[in-house]
Amino acid sequence: MKKLKVAIVGFGSVGRNIAQLLEKRADDYAQKYDISIQITGVCKSRSGLIENQHGLSLDEILDIPQYVSGLTNHDFMQRVEADVIIDVGPSDYVTGGSSLEYIRQALKNKINVICVSKGALVLELESLLELATQNRVKLLYSGATAAALPTVDFIRSNLLGCKILTIQGILTGTTNLILDEMMQNNLSFDDALTKAKNLGIAEPDSSFDTQGWDTAAKICIIAKTFFKKENIDFYHLSKQGIEHITQLDIEHWRLNSLVPRLVGYIDCMDHNLSAGVRLELFEKTHPFSLVTGKNKALRVLTDDMGEFYISGGASSPVATAAAALKDLEYLILNKLV
Amino acid sequence: MKKLKVAIVGFGSVGRNIAQLLEKRADDYAQKYDISIQITGVCKSRSGLIENQHGLSLDEILDIPQYVSGLTNHDFMQRVEADVIIDVGPSDYVTGGSSLEYIRQALKNKINVICVSKGALVLELESLLELATQNRVKLLYSGATAAALPTVDFIRSNLLGCKILTIQGILTGTTNLILDEMMQNNLSFDDALTKAKNLGIAEPDSSFDTQGWDTAAKICIIAKTFFKKENIDFYHLSKQGIEHITQLDIEHWRLNSLVPRLVGYIDCMDHNLSAGVRLELFEKTHPFSLVTGKNKALRVLTDDMGEFYISGGASSPVATAAAALKDLEYLILNKLV
Repeated sequence: MKKLKVAIVGFGSVGRNIAQLLEKRADDYAQKYDISIQITGVCKSRSGLIENQHGLSLDEILDIPQYVSGLTNHDFMQRVEADVIIDVGPSDYVTGGSSLEYIRQALKNKINVICVSKGALVLELESLLELATQNRVKLLYSGATAAALPTVDFIRSNLLGCKILTIQGILTGTTNLILDEMMQNNLSFDDALTKAKNLGIAEPDSSFDTQGWDTAAKICIIAKTFFKKENIDFYHLSKQGIEHITQLDIEHWRLNSLVPRLVGYIDCMDHNLSAGVRLELFEKTHPFSLVTGKNKALRVLTDDMGEFYISGGASSPVATAAAALKDLEYLILNKLV
Repeated sequence: MKKLKVAIVGFGSVGRNIAQLLEKRADDYAQKYDISIQITGVCKSRSGLIENQHGLSLDEILDIPQYVSGLTNHDFMQRVEADVIIDVGPSDYVTGGSSLEYIRQALKNKINVICVSKGALVLELESLLELATQNRVKLLYSGATAAALPTVDFIRSNLLGCKILTIQGILTGTTNLILDEMMQNNLSFDDALTKAKNLGIAEPDSSFDTQGWDTAAKICIIAKTFFKKENIDFYHLSKQGIEHITQLDIEHWRLNSLVPRLVGYIDCMDHNLSAGVRLELFEKTHPFSLVTGKNKALRVLTDDMGEFYISGGASSPVATAAAALKDLEYLILNKLV
């Protein structure tokens, strides 16, 4: 049986779920692909790292106190043996952070990268894809742009050949949950935000969600993927959040049977691309009005196939982990590893 | 520039749209893949065939009176030079018809096949896929199971790695249009059916749509694709149509805010697969209630990623043609031709 070595960078709840899913699916991988996937290293900021070129058990991986501390990112990349690196570390939207270093180093070392964190992609997607091409490896990121909800991979595979005219998305589970709780259950903004935090789906700095930055980051990555010639800059995207919404707004919308949703958009109808994030109001006959709780949704309008809506993919660590493993299985299926 | 030879079997409105789309997208193919696609043959039942190993112009292809008549399927397959055959001929659900012969012959000749017609797949999908594998070519059929609405390819690529627990689909544009017209515009069944026929979306024998056979055929292909070990037989699927619906039913549903939809389903929740077609009633908060006119929709429930809805892909010859060309571009992109 072929062995495939995987290293995980960043080890919060998504990273843990990746390790657990890999164990759960081990028989499937063996049966379908005659492949055995071994986690050869995990690096967790602050806690340190663990690595073993012959593979680590789930118990070893979950035993964080045993991690070797005091080593840098650079040390990890030098020590670990991997065919694929999965980056689920924190997103840094100013410098790209250690993710950007890991990804660059991995690609240079001809290691495929699966990226769930967004910072490095938002800032450097074009140069990273070029680096991947130069080194004949892949940089995949299905889980970065709304986790389990298929976005980039839906457009890329299911609409292959069509021109994309418009993309709209409810891409942040946290803001959708907050809006839904305010509308349906009459919660205040603060109480709804607390609920999102308790569910563990809010970003560490929740204003990143509620001011529209998280949606903007995802729209930015989608736009850079499908509209390569445009010069899309994260910090110059038009942005709106949901913090300004008052109880009066909510009552007014409820009275008029309107449903508020925070929407990321890319419009390319007349060859002038515009992209951003804005609060939109939908009638109850619009599919976005039915996207409740921490679910997400996408609308794509094409030239030859008409329009499509996808919804679902509710935010959860296991769903995000499954999105990362979708990319891993894509590499295996297409014999790219 | 590399040349890719394509032959089209069956030449109704979808076939014509394929030829026209190939011409419209020629520059894109050249730019993206450095490839020139040439239609080297078209075969139209009753009218005969046209072929030229150096490629045919769109004018030649559309000039049906100039087709050579009196030749058989076998003659066409012997004469035409092709890397890919696209089958958009009529579906025969009893014997598989000439489609089945074409597909078998093509696969044996190591020619990739893209199939939009359903008859041969419903009856012989397993053996045809095996034949394709034996001959190291591909049999693709994204357009056969609800045309532009991604079904098989959505599950295969976007949910890769997850276990599929339930699939439900509004898979027939005609029956959805009829139900919608009866509910929204108070049309009788017959008038609504006439409207569907005038739009050119009904099957030649419309009872195939309205008695649930068309949905059953699509569910059968999806089930055979993802639940290979089950013994799924088209003629033994549980089936329900929409012909029995009375004005009284419509009034009752309207009064109770319920929306009728003809739904194909595959249920595998407890490892006992059940599949079929039935009329279901949805509340207005269910995404299927918003799937109006000739649109279609799919719901998929997975183990690790939760549930997804896709809707759109309204029935139209150009959208179906685009679905077939999605498969063609998949072959090119993955260097399979």
